[in-house]
Amino acid sequence: MTALAEPASERRDTAGLVARRLPGHALEAPFYVSDEFLALDLAAVFSRHWIFVATEAEVPEAGDYVTIDVGPYSVIVLRDDDEQVRALHNVCRHRGSRILHDAAGSVGNLVCGYHQWTYSTDGTLMHAGQQAPGFDKSCFGLKQVAVRSVEGLIFVCLAADPPADFDDVAARITPYLAPHQLRTTKVAAQEDLIEHANWKLVMENNRECYHCEAGHPELTCTFFPTYGYADDEIPKRLLPAHSRYLEATSELERECDARGFPYALISELSGRPTGFRVRREALDGAGESYTRDGRAASRILLGDLDTPRMGRLSLHFQPNSWFHFLGDHIVTFSVLPLAADRTLVRTTWLVHADAVEGVDYDPATLTEVWHQTNAQDGAFVARAQAGVRDPAYSPGPYAPTETDVEEFVAWYIERLKEYANR
Amino acid sequence: MTALAEPASERRDTAGLVARRLPGHALEAPFYVSDEFLALDLAAVFSRHWIFVATEAEVPEAGDYVTIDVGPYSVIVLRDDDEQVRALHNVCRHRGSRILHDAAGSVGNLVCGYHQWTYSTDGTLMHAGQQAPGFDKSCFGLKQVAVRSVEGLIFVCLAADPPADFDDVAARITPYLAPHQLRTTKVAAQEDLIEHANWKLVMENNRECYHCEAGHPELTCTFFPTYGYADDEIPKRLLPAHSRYLEATSELERECDARGFPYALISELSGRPTGFRVRREALDGAGESYTRDGRAASRILLGDLDTPRMGRLSLHFQPNSWFHFLGDHIVTFSVLPLAADRTLVRTTWLVHADAVEGVDYDPATLTEVWHQTNAQDGAFVARAQAGVRDPAYSPGPYAPTETDVEEFVAWYIERLKEYANR
Amino acid sequence: MTALAEPASERRDTAGLVARRLPGHALEAPFYVSDEFLALDLAAVFSRHWIFVATEAEVPEAGDYVTIDVGPYSVIVLRDDDEQVRALHNVCRHRGSRILHDAAGSVGNLVCGYHQWTYSTDGTLMHAGQQAPGFDKSCFGLKQVAVRSVEGLIFVCLAADPPADFDDVAARITPYLAPHQLRTTKVAAQEDLIEHANWKLVMENNRECYHCEAGHPELTCTFFPTYGYADDEIPKRLLPAHSRYLEATSELERECDARGFPYALISELSGRPTGFRVRREALDGAGESYTRDGRAASRILLGDLDTPRMGRLSLHFQPNSWFHFLGDHIVTFSVLPLAADRTLVRTTWLVHADAVEGVDYDPATLTEVWHQTNAQDGAFVARAQAGVRDPAYSPGPYAPTETDVEEFVAWYIERLKEYANR
Repeated sequence: MTALAEPASERRDTAGLVARRLPGHALEAPFYVSDEFLALDLAAVFSRHWIFVATEAEVPEAGDYVTIDVGPYSVIVLRDDDEQVRALHNVCRHRGSRILHDAAGSVGNLVCGYHQWTYSTDGTLMHAGQQAPGFDKSCFGLKQVAVRSVEGLIFVCLAADPPADFDDVAARITPYLAPHQLRTTKVAAQEDLIEHANWKLVMENNRECYHCEAGHPELTCTFFPTYGYADDEIPKRLLPAHSRYLEATSELERECDARGFPYALISELSGRPTGFRVRREALDGAGESYTRDGRAASRILLGDLDTPRMGRLSLHFQPNSWFHFLGDHIVTFSVLPLAADRTLVRTTWLVHADAVEGVDYDPATLTEVWHQTNAQDGAFVARAQAGVRDPAYSPGPYAPTETDVEEFVAWYIERLKEYANR
Repeated sequence: MTALAEPASERRDTAGLVARRLPGHALEAPFYVSDEFLALDLAAVFSRHWIFVATEAEVPEAGDYVTIDVGPYSVIVLRDDDEQVRALHNVCRHRGSRILHDAAGSVGNLVCGYHQWTYSTDGTLMHAGQQAPGFDKSCFGLKQVAVRSVEGLIFVCLAADPPADFDDVAARITPYLAPHQLRTTKVAAQEDLIEHANWKLVMENNRECYHCEAGHPELTCTFFPTYGYADDEIPKRLLPAHSRYLEATSELERECDARGFPYALISELSGRPTGFRVRREALDGAGESYTRDGRAASRILLGDLDTPRMGRLSLHFQPNSWFHFLGDHIVTFSVLPLAADRTLVRTTWLVHADAVEGVDYDPATLTEVWHQTNAQDGAFVARAQAGVRDPAYSPGPYAPTETDVEEFVAWYIERLKEYANR
Repeated sequence: MTALAEPASERRDTAGLVARRLPGHALEAPFYVSDEFLALDLAAVFSRHWIFVATEAEVPEAGDYVTIDVGPYSVIVLRDDDEQVRALHNVCRHRGSRILHDAAGSVGNLVCGYHQWTYSTDGTLMHAGQQAPGFDKSCFGLKQVAVRSVEGLIFVCLAADPPADFDDVAARITPYLAPHQLRTTKVAAQEDLIEHANWKLVMENNRECYHCEAGHPELTCTFFPTYGYADDEIPKRLLPAHSRYLEATSELERECDARGFPYALISELSGRPTGFRVRREALDGAGESYTRDGRAASRILLGDLDTPRMGRLSLHFQPNSWFHFLGDHIVTFSVLPLAADRTLVRTTWLVHADAVEGVDYDPATLTEVWHQTNAQDGAFVARAQAGVRDPAYSPGPYAPTETDVEEFVAWYIERLKEYANR
């Protein structure tokens, strides 16, 4: 149900709503509740930008695939017979049937079960039963989807002309990610959570930690309590914690410098199609990983790392993902809209391919912090969704700690404007 | 699904449908089935009139609250720290989160769980974390909703300019209600029933007893079987019942006159924004209450009443409520639309605050008649909803006993016209 | 959810989509997924053509009825007090309530449970409580629906002016159906399957057997494996099967000629309002019935038949039905849209009225082939529905064996054009 007290005509005036968006404030209700904006978001954002969908660790062998629903699209991400990661539309060229029905699996060829049209793993149509003279198989291969892997993170773009600035972003984030060698990891756990909120509320929630102190007791175990304060605004009671933070940060930077790992913040979350933010930061507690005590959750370190105290390499990507690379594991997040008020959040935990479950890592310990944090966030955004659809809702001002929320919304508005002027 | 055989354009021509409504006949299908009319009803009726939502007995102490959903709105009805009944929009002024999530409870302050914005019980913003310089807390109090209590019946109006004729109505019904002293009662039982019909079918069903004889065996135990007949049309077989009715009525009027209680019918169900109807009438059987045998269901009489034989004081209110005040208990009904074809009917039974459950009253006996009657009505209106969406449906004529249905519909059409011309 | 990547305006341009339909190819996505086309299909196809809904065996006695939902309509099909099959709208003429609530049953009169309006089995209003002077009961009979029975197959048409060519079709198919004497059968089993696909995908699936070889192992037990091949294209490996087919066909034709039963193909699936196709064909295996081994499933032959080897008399009817008449039983199929992506398929198995369950026939054996085939088809069309709503879907070409699919689609497009020009 859309915001009923507003006339439908106003609710559907997406261009007007985009034009009058007030910087520094949350979006107006129709952005979060109307089917018109869901359709616009799918067309202008999800169909035209690079979307994170999976990792190479999920398709390790030729023939391995995952299927990903991006709105009404189903995309097959698979490793083809030449060991290349490839993405294909999961739609038979005959009468449109889905070809693969499972979320993940392994195939020899891609065979449509309806009339046995058979495609090779690169999408070429090999067999199609009896056809009329003049039928040209080469015209009926599966449609290709643009795909890129950055250090094992797989991004797809549904557009024919994907944003060209992705190469630049890939080049700049690669040195940050490389030491963790994602391509030598395996999936230790994966969790799909359906949050009852618009995808943008899910992203906005991720882009600030104003709600963390009261809302995320597990996550904040490894956050310095000065998080969010400017250096000259630290309250007196937090000065000891601030010293701890400065010391841990110096140590992390020394270790990185010694190994040639970059750590400085790059924040280009808006102002470009492929908005991103990357930084390596120290963790509080034992300083090793996202666990309650901050100790590593897996005994086998990633890549060639020789210390678990590498802090967290955090990468944020517009429009739909974020990532934390720790010394012992990687956790990835993808956000995909299911409806105006329902969103899939997929969380994947990766450990070294040689790590043995029950010996080197305990999945419950590995996943605890983000499992709890996701559940808490799911409750927060569901309550926000219920509220923003109330006709009494009016967008409030963002606090100084909500800068990256503002950046996300600013990026989103830029993209809608760019789409309108295309 | 809307009425599919009609073109969408016609279905959406709400103004044309309002203009051509045939007096004395049921409404055309789109009024009951289309999302356009649901939106219009919420905007023109539920957002602009006084809506009954709760009783003071539900919020006896400072900090006690109930939350009420009126279409997409959530309204907090609470008793503030000054013991006043107050109504607030349940929407945080920061990023719109719902503040209260339960249907009822008790609070000290109103704290939004998302970022800990904290409001006092009168809606004032007290704390809002770190904010930018220039942030003015006084601009971000919870939005107020107009609220009035008439002898403990709580009405809210979502409009900035509520109908002014409410004061007149309140003044005229107060003497009818006052002897029952609702403010000294407590809630003995409450039942929420979701009926699968448009809210107007629910109201129309309530506004006639043509269907009672065959449809409500429990309710009609205390109805004189001459109900619905004009005095000069009583069938011969019902003459004894008619004598009984006349005698009971004379007795009731004598008792009322002796105590200064008004009983005469006032019926202004249409022709004004705050349509209402009030009357005290005799009951058949023991004549005391809405029970199978007509005897009181609670041993403690309400207020200062000295006899249970006070008949039923029945109050009907446009657009969404009706009430029966008996000597021993009060029963209130509120009707709130959930969707074009789904409606919440909340029934609340109130007894004297000193009555002890299991000693002075048995909840099963107290609620039996209206519990059964509600269930029967729920089935009737669901079957009507299924029928009116059939393209073969054409509005039939109201019978002479359906006068108050016609009044309800006439009031409704008046309100839509007034809204269109505002 | 409709096809989100397309602008709504394009999706709703039903006329443009009809006009540009490419012959020999599947329909574009909006035909299968949009609510606009569902509404158009109900208005242009289901409300204006003869729709198969039931058999006379389902209403054997006066007062017996079935209720059938055709989109938002509910139609009562009953045998009236004069033993005639009659169809009435299931909508009370007072305030629109449904009168009958069960899928099937038996009544004396038709009594609306809401206010006791009472109609005779021919729809005449007999009683309506107290009414105002001038109320004319003869104006408020139940609305009639056009109805025809062809050898016991009951068709209704919701239009005031049903297609006139039905008489011609009835006359031409009657000699094919007559030997099986449906009116002397009884219902042995009935199965309602909700398929998660548009009704046209359900029909298209029925109109080809390209998918049978891999998809329907039970059904193809009695199909000659040369099905779908032209006589001059039989692969060498199938020549023995082809000889078997030719021999069985000759035998069937001799037997039919001896009894005066027609068997030749009449195929007029498009080019007329009442499109149809009828033919008697030989079965492989024992050649008697739709069972795994081809033997009769009921020991009592239908009508006056003296041999079970009568092959299958197959009748296809636009828009919503098909039928197989065997020597020992009849199976009928009706297809009714529930939503753009949900369709009811009702399958009814009829055996001789004298056949005794458990003695003359085993319901599990009787229903096995089509129960399995329906379930398989339900899965196929659900996967097609998921695919055609994908923006990557583009209609592919029909194969030579999909001629009757093309005929169905061509008929459908003709009907939409005729409706637009009415």
